[in-house]
Amino acid sequence: MNGNHSGSTRAGTGGRTPMEPKADRETVRRHNLSLVLRTVRDQVEATRAGVAARVGLTRAAVSSLVEQLIESGFLSESGKTFSGQAGRPGTVLKVARTGLAGIGVEINVDYVAVCVVDLAGTDRVRLVEHLDNRGAEPAEVFGRAARIAARALASATEQELRPVGAELALPGLISGGSVLHAPNLGWTSVPAETPFAEALAALRPGPPALPVRSENEANLAALAELWFGGLGDVRSFLYLTGEIGVGGALVLDGELLRGANGFAGEIGHVSVSDDGPLCRCGSHGCLEQYAGQAALLRAAGLDERAGAAGMAELERRARAGDDAALAALSGAGRALGRALSGAVNLFDPDAVVLGGVYRPLMPWLGPPTGAELEARVVSGLWSPTSARLRASSPAADAARGAAALVVQDVLADPVAYAPRPPA
Amino acid sequence: MNGNHSGSTRAGTGGRTPMEPKADRETVRRHNLSLVLRTVRDQVEATRAGVAARVGLTRAAVSSLVEQLIESGFLSESGKTFSGQAGRPGTVLKVARTGLAGIGVEINVDYVAVCVVDLAGTDRVRLVEHLDNRGAEPAEVFGRAARIAARALASATEQELRPVGAELALPGLISGGSVLHAPNLGWTSVPAETPFAEALAALRPGPPALPVRSENEANLAALAELWFGGLGDVRSFLYLTGEIGVGGALVLDGELLRGANGFAGEIGHVSVSDDGPLCRCGSHGCLEQYAGQAALLRAAGLDERAGAAGMAELERRARAGDDAALAALSGAGRALGRALSGAVNLFDPDAVVLGGVYRPLMPWLGPPTGAELEARVVSGLWSPTSARLRASSPAADAARGAAALVVQDVLADPVAYAPRPPA
Repeated sequence: MNGNHSGSTRAGTGGRTPMEPKADRETVRRHNLSLVLRTVRDQVEATRAGVAARVGLTRAAVSSLVEQLIESGFLSESGKTFSGQAGRPGTVLKVARTGLAGIGVEINVDYVAVCVVDLAGTDRVRLVEHLDNRGAEPAEVFGRAARIAARALASATEQELRPVGAELALPGLISGGSVLHAPNLGWTSVPAETPFAEALAALRPGPPALPVRSENEANLAALAELWFGGLGDVRSFLYLTGEIGVGGALVLDGELLRGANGFAGEIGHVSVSDDGPLCRCGSHGCLEQYAGQAALLRAAGLDERAGAAGMAELERRARAGDDAALAALSGAGRALGRALSGAVNLFDPDAVVLGGVYRPLMPWLGPPTGAELEARVVSGLWSPTSARLRASSPAADAARGAAALVVQDVLADPVAYAPRPPA
Repeated sequence: MNGNHSGSTRAGTGGRTPMEPKADRETVRRHNLSLVLRTVRDQVEATRAGVAARVGLTRAAVSSLVEQLIESGFLSESGKTFSGQAGRPGTVLKVARTGLAGIGVEINVDYVAVCVVDLAGTDRVRLVEHLDNRGAEPAEVFGRAARIAARALASATEQELRPVGAELALPGLISGGSVLHAPNLGWTSVPAETPFAEALAALRPGPPALPVRSENEANLAALAELWFGGLGDVRSFLYLTGEIGVGGALVLDGELLRGANGFAGEIGHVSVSDDGPLCRCGSHGCLEQYAGQAALLRAAGLDERAGAAGMAELERRARAGDDAALAALSGAGRALGRALSGAVNLFDPDAVVLGGVYRPLMPWLGPPTGAELEARVVSGLWSPTSARLRASSPAADAARGAAALVVQDVLADPVAYAPRPPA
């Protein structure tokens, strides 16, 4: 049920043990094509010799693999370099800036964000539209998202990019291509992948329909943070994204922890206060009721449906020292700290990353959140000034994570996606 | 820092990929010896032919491996069976009931429990002494534990068992052989492995000193539950153990989740109520203050230091319908349910297992705990009658888990422990 992603490229795979039959020649070659492609992507000035040294294959083997990747349009050559190797210059290899790509479509409660990512992971197209999806029929919401996605695909085509799949990022429990439960959209058991794929195909009668998959938006934002967030050595972290709801995700040793049913990470519905206000999920006192976007706006004396403009106003007022704004942020920070301290006691991560609307508010949310963590985390490793509590990177969001997940599948087995058959 | 257990047999290991150099012959043989030994252990009536079919090696290869394991004392032959294979009877193979073993020593706040486990995982010696370790000097506590362990080792010797290592189970944050923080013992930065090893060696001047390692007791109880608890298909679960403190552990896909610093699972210090009573950890409103043993006894009108006798009296009173006892259990169940619902929202496990003092109290704790889970878990997969909430197995506890962890290392590489050099 893992949000459709139980494939071998997603999960931490089990080990190949010595008594298993040897992989056949074709399997090894496909694996090595992927390895060379990913190694080129990860290096600043990759050369055949440099890649060979890095992956432990012969120079001749790497050259043959590189030729196939160039012929298939995954790699291109770009100038010469003397770096790394003594003596002769090497030809610099780059992952192709055109050709295969991925598209990510985040459908959230009050916005839709679309991102197209190329094979190098660069975000080449970005579209964000603020709108209110609450109360709208799912068909209408998917229609809106498909129109924005179609515009992004047109921009991608102009840049000679060809997305091979779309990944939906949705604010709720996702399983088997459907939204099982998205309290803030008011959706229960709503099919997502098929309606979106059909709406998009209707807008693009020419090209073959894009395969569509779906995943929880906080999970995808956490993957974006892992891949593009500049986290350094941090491999295990809790990710929180503040939106209308509060989404969460757990990354353990560089792998998303999806849980037994794909529903892990729901920190928005961790209870902060025993007899707190009723939440849309049916429980009481959930974190969302203290630190969600509506709660923040309300506590600051702003219209709780004011959306992005309201959040910008909240930030402006906080910067100006407005008492109500500062009190609202302090209260939300304490609630975040209480929920996070429980999660940190359970999970013992290297870091906690706050994203979404929390990112620009960290100057005010950070200190009260950190104070609660210091008081409540039993390991004693947390303090208000600890670098363990950090804002998300502006380069990382759910739409980019979604698009990069499509690209990751291409990189994991380029032969399966090769636009031209290998020679 | 993983409580000293970062070795290859403990963590989920990465995959061996096709381009790595081939394992050499000796490495493969050691691996296969381990594989055959573990396969025999896991089967009811193992034969050479049955093992060969199971592991995918030739009958001849398995026979050779089995001979080496018999010569080294890991396996023995035991009668004939016709089961499984058509035609000729096979000789039944058993893991040796004598020889190498492990010893686990749980030092808790008001008891010490010692267990010796043989290669088959059977607990062959058990000793439990109720005593009060609060306020005692660490040296005295390790001396007590060593005396009990020495008696268990004498019983093991009588049964021709030879433990090759001792594992300490301790109620606190463990790292680098020390107790970093054990609030209910009042210990901070107390070395554990060396003082225990020395105290034990002083009591046994003859044999070579046992290697000693240490781990959090809830982690070891959770491993015991995984290995001996009859959990069936459940591979991801939250484990809670009620003692003076409330310990917790998370098992994900059959692996203990230790966290970035080895401190994961501290559910006892998840906050249940914002402004609840001060906890020994320094925070307020921790689960321990509502559902720890002392809190339960106090709420039922019993002496909070009455220990095991007090808990037996609480159970007796609950069975008799005593109002204070029932109210105490109902309140503790609600607190457990609140803390657990947050953990389940975060981690999405297959099951929650309640052990320690909670096990016999499940008839009264289960319904209020389950009601909170039903109300607060956003996936909707939990209900008061769900089999997902269950009591721990009486066959599983921290001392047995500790002993079995030592045995697991033997099974992972029997050659490293072979009492007689292989022929």
